[in-house]
Amino acid sequence: MATRIDGKAIAADVRVNVAKAVSELPSQPTLAVILVGEDPASQVYVNSKVKQTQECGMRSLHNVLPANATQDQVEAEIAKLNDDPEVDGILLQLPLPKGLDADSAIEKISPDKDVDGLTEASAGRLVLGKPGLRPCTPSGCVILAKRALGNDLSGKNVVVVGRSILVGKPAALLFLAENCTVTIAHSRTKDLAAVCREADILVPAVGRPQMLTGEYVKPGAVVIDVGINRIDAPERGEGKTRLVGDAEFDSCEAVAGHITPVPGGVGPMTIACLLQNTVLAACARRGWNIPDILNS
Amino acid sequence: MATRIDGKAIAADVRVNVAKAVSELPSQPTLAVILVGEDPASQVYVNSKVKQTQECGMRSLHNVLPANATQDQVEAEIAKLNDDPEVDGILLQLPLPKGLDADSAIEKISPDKDVDGLTEASAGRLVLGKPGLRPCTPSGCVILAKRALGNDLSGKNVVVVGRSILVGKPAALLFLAENCTVTIAHSRTKDLAAVCREADILVPAVGRPQMLTGEYVKPGAVVIDVGINRIDAPERGEGKTRLVGDAEFDSCEAVAGHITPVPGGVGPMTIACLLQNTVLAACARRGWNIPDILNS
Ligand SMILES: NC(=O)c1ccc[n+]([C@@H]2O[C@H](COP(=O)([O-])OP(=O)(O)OC[C@H]3O[C@@H](n4cnc5c(N)ncnc54)[C@H](OP(=O)(O)O)[C@@H]3O)[C@@H](O)[C@H]2O)c1
Ligand SMILES: NC(=O)c1ccc[n+]([C@@H]2O[C@H](COP(=O)([O-])OP(=O)(O)OC[C@H]3O[C@@H](n4cnc5c(N)ncnc54)[C@H](OP(=O)(O)O)[C@@H]3O)[C@@H](O)[C@H]2O)c1
Repeated sequence: MATRIDGKAIAADVRVNVAKAVSELPSQPTLAVILVGEDPASQVYVNSKVKQTQECGMRSLHNVLPANATQDQVEAEIAKLNDDPEVDGILLQLPLPKGLDADSAIEKISPDKDVDGLTEASAGRLVLGKPGLRPCTPSGCVILAKRALGNDLSGKNVVVVGRSILVGKPAALLFLAENCTVTIAHSRTKDLAAVCREADILVPAVGRPQMLTGEYVKPGAVVIDVGINRIDAPERGEGKTRLVGDAEFDSCEAVAGHITPVPGGVGPMTIACLLQNTVLAACARRGWNIPDILNS
Repeated sequence: MATRIDGKAIAADVRVNVAKAVSELPSQPTLAVILVGEDPASQVYVNSKVKQTQECGMRSLHNVLPANATQDQVEAEIAKLNDDPEVDGILLQLPLPKGLDADSAIEKISPDKDVDGLTEASAGRLVLGKPGLRPCTPSGCVILAKRALGNDLSGKNVVVVGRSILVGKPAALLFLAENCTVTIAHSRTKDLAAVCREADILVPAVGRPQMLTGEYVKPGAVVIDVGINRIDAPERGEGKTRLVGDAEFDSCEAVAGHITPVPGGVGPMTIACLLQNTVLAACARRGWNIPDILNS
């Protein structure tokens, strides 16, 4: 029976470390969030980011543009924040309302303030192994794997299922940088279960509820389930739903050595890593030393 | 007994196609090469690039800076070529003389003229799956694999041994873009032979002469050997040397379905892909359609 990896608690630890780091800095870093429109889910996410930013002792700038904002207006807002010496991180909340080009807008964010790690330059720095801001959810996956197995992941076989630019590819590159042997699988992979059973660390990032059963897991492996899927849960009452991962929890838990639950696994790590990135961005841009506590 | 993949002939085919493409363009693309210093090996490479560029009907600009050129002088030369509307591709011949910072200089090349595909932006575009210029040697590997197996590599298991930014990582990302399931192995990989034996396409890019023997090859697999290593060859006479790959040719040839020789395998593809990149760069920057022959 696998040990559960408590993402909620580990994310809280990361936030405590970020808050300590912030308290040691010469001044307060600032994270600017841009929300375009009034999508309720996005509002919830943004509010939660704002709250956690402040709880860590950082300044939060909350910029709201109307749903009918033009591409030029969004990009002008980004340009303004790029030029603002007080702003350390810029986060454009996605998705944007229809008609706006998210890729083009993201590309306008200065790489030095790109705390989501989504620009071409950030992706390039990741491949080239240069200092830079790494995508948050994949960074969270690495932290969780290290909590399960210890800081040295070198030589572990990692299988990432999914190759999106948001999760799969950067996760593969981050585990590679940790000296893991990394396999990237996806919808065209043949005999996926056999490929997955080679993994010491299995990272499903597919977006298909409960697709990976215990059959996909090598006994004792670590399962870091990135999937967040909402499914019907009639057992909880009519019309009720619940969140599940891409791994079928019960059968995987029976085989794995460690496993993240959904919710409460990878999910909470994303914002924690965003906050950490904001401190790292501030230090790099302002020439501050990174507080030791963030290097541990 | 494996079929030999004739890289020399395939590179010649690519160059013929590039020449045909050039003849269909509204005007002549220009490839600018910057050579700093007088390293004899670099001079040989540059001369060969200049010659092949001209043979394909393109214009070649050959810029030589003295071995004692400063970083500023090298970067000023790059800036001049970036600004020159007639120049489509800029190639900085590596290595640079001691004391110069190649990374910093490369980063000054406009991504739109980065025909070596080595800038942060080019690497980022590769990860993000955006149009851009791809590194030449890895592109050559994909072309050779397609010649062996047909254009559709989807679902093939690829194992790349090596994770350099010049070869290993971009090769992995290019095979991933071809819908292969890709494993990246390296010096920390455990039981490398077993990992390699899973490969339908094995790509050694290690830099260790004849390291991968037939034991590393699945029967019938395609071996694309990137390694170019010079070893002593006393059998050819005293003090003689010869080139070998990272694969031990005879034992691999006995097991593989297809194999590239060294020399005459991946090696000749690099310049051919550079010439192709120059045409692609010219088309993208000047708003020309890419001639059909380069899409086939
Ligand atoms: N904070 C968080 O925890 C967080 C953040 C982001 C995303 N997520 C969740 O993570 C999951 C993945 O997100 P994403 O943005 O990466 O999704 P995505 O862009 O849709 O990518 C899904 C990937 O899964 C692959 N795939 C689809 N069906 C497959 C199958 N049957 N077998 C193997 N691979 C298959 C796809 O392969 P092809 O490329 O071949 O199509 C694709 O690469 C989602 O559930 C999402 O909600 C969570
Ligand atoms: N035109 C061409 O055909 C062309 C172009 C470029 C290069 N090459 C040749 O390709 C080879 C590789 O070049 P490169 O620039 O990629 O070399 P590199 O930068 O030295 O990288 C070598 C890679 O091989 C890995 N490695 C070293 N020893 C290993 C071992 N015992 N087992 C498994 N992996 C091992 C290293 O792993 P770690 O990362 O763990 O150290 C590293 O990732 C060289 O022979 C080079 O001459 C040919």
